[in-house]
Amino acid sequence: MRTVDPARHRARRRHIVNAAAGLFATKGFERTTTAEICKAAGMSAGNLFHYFPNKRAIFHAVFEDDEGDERDGATKAERLAAARAADDPWAALLDTVDLLAAPAAEPLVPALVMEAMMQAYRDPELDALLSRDNDEEKSTVGTLLRNAAAAGQIDPALDPDDAAAWVMALVAALYTSAATDPSFDPARQLPTLRLILQRFLRPGSPQGAE
Amino acid sequence: MRTVDPARHRARRRHIVNAAAGLFATKGFERTTTAEICKAAGMSAGNLFHYFPNKRAIFHAVFEDDEGDERDGATKAERLAAARAADDPWAALLDTVDLLAAPAAEPLVPALVMEAMMQAYRDPELDALLSRDNDEEKSTVGTLLRNAAAAGQIDPALDPDDAAAWVMALVAALYTSAATDPSFDPARQLPTLRLILQRFLRPGSPQGAE
Repeated sequence: MRTVDPARHRARRRHIVNAAAGLFATKGFERTTTAEICKAAGMSAGNLFHYFPNKRAIFHAVFEDDEGDERDGATKAERLAAARAADDPWAALLDTVDLLAAPAAEPLVPALVMEAMMQAYRDPELDALLSRDNDEEKSTVGTLLRNAAAAGQIDPALDPDDAAAWVMALVAALYTSAATDPSFDPARQLPTLRLILQRFLRPGSPQGAE
Repeated sequence: MRTVDPARHRARRRHIVNAAAGLFATKGFERTTTAEICKAAGMSAGNLFHYFPNKRAIFHAVFEDDEGDERDGATKAERLAAARAADDPWAALLDTVDLLAAPAAEPLVPALVMEAMMQAYRDPELDALLSRDNDEEKSTVGTLLRNAAAAGQIDPALDPDDAAAWVMALVAALYTSAATDPSFDPARQLPTLRLILQRFLRPGSPQGAE
């Protein structure tokens, strides 16, 4: 009887997920076959199915593992929690936007995010997975907007839920524009995203009006 | 030999396209079968294929016909041309944003736009079709931003191409947010979209700062 080494098992899963992510990004979920994933990962189908029950489970893992990754020693959830508790909610909001926007500059990510948005339409489990992440992000942004308004840092007339929806929409636009417009470079457009947010949320401020 | 009545032929094509659009919006292009389209349109496959060579041609027609529709007696291309020639470029820009944003409030449209964005990835013909439309829209917005800057109506320090990319991204965000966030109501969010554009493009103006 074989014993399972958890670290090795995780590394093999990660290897499969990385191989599949490139296919999902370029061909899409529907057109990617498990045979292609096996080939890209250098594994037999029998071996692959030892790690994932089916193609959809691999697709889910692309987003689960990505979201759960540790960066700079802190998970995204920990960084969002730290932002919510920050003394300067406006600075924390800009940091949070940077945190959420950063992956858009990675080559395959915008296409994968687009594919996930589409698949979530017809896949309740994936929808729940992405919604959980998105809800936490949006609620952090909403909390920071409320705190920033209370601290006199942003326009108090804005509805915080509407404003949070648009902050999220602007961040999402970085991904969808990168995925659909070859001339749109997310890293180069990040300063304009920040400028739009400053002018929208802090009209009349020095940063807003420059 | 049967003669073809062009008006009747167009009406039958439109009937098929409308029946298929509902399926494409809810099930997606890949999962919609021609058998389902035949059933929804109440036609035999032989009859359907008299109007369209395949499922993809029907999908393309959803966007061709939509874009080519006459509304209020003028096609979208004519309305964009009129905007480019307008005396008040800022007012024309707001009108153009309304023109581009309006379909987002129709029930099936956001889902269809999302599906088209995804399919365009793997379908060069559809990509060319959508890019042609998008390029005309973006170039109209760019022209209006240049004219508005020359007329002293907007911040002259903004790069007009970057600003045009973000105006387009904000309009697109109305579609993608409506398609992915059940709490996002495009009709209700349109005033906030206008406010963001005013504050971004005209910082310090009465509309911008309220």
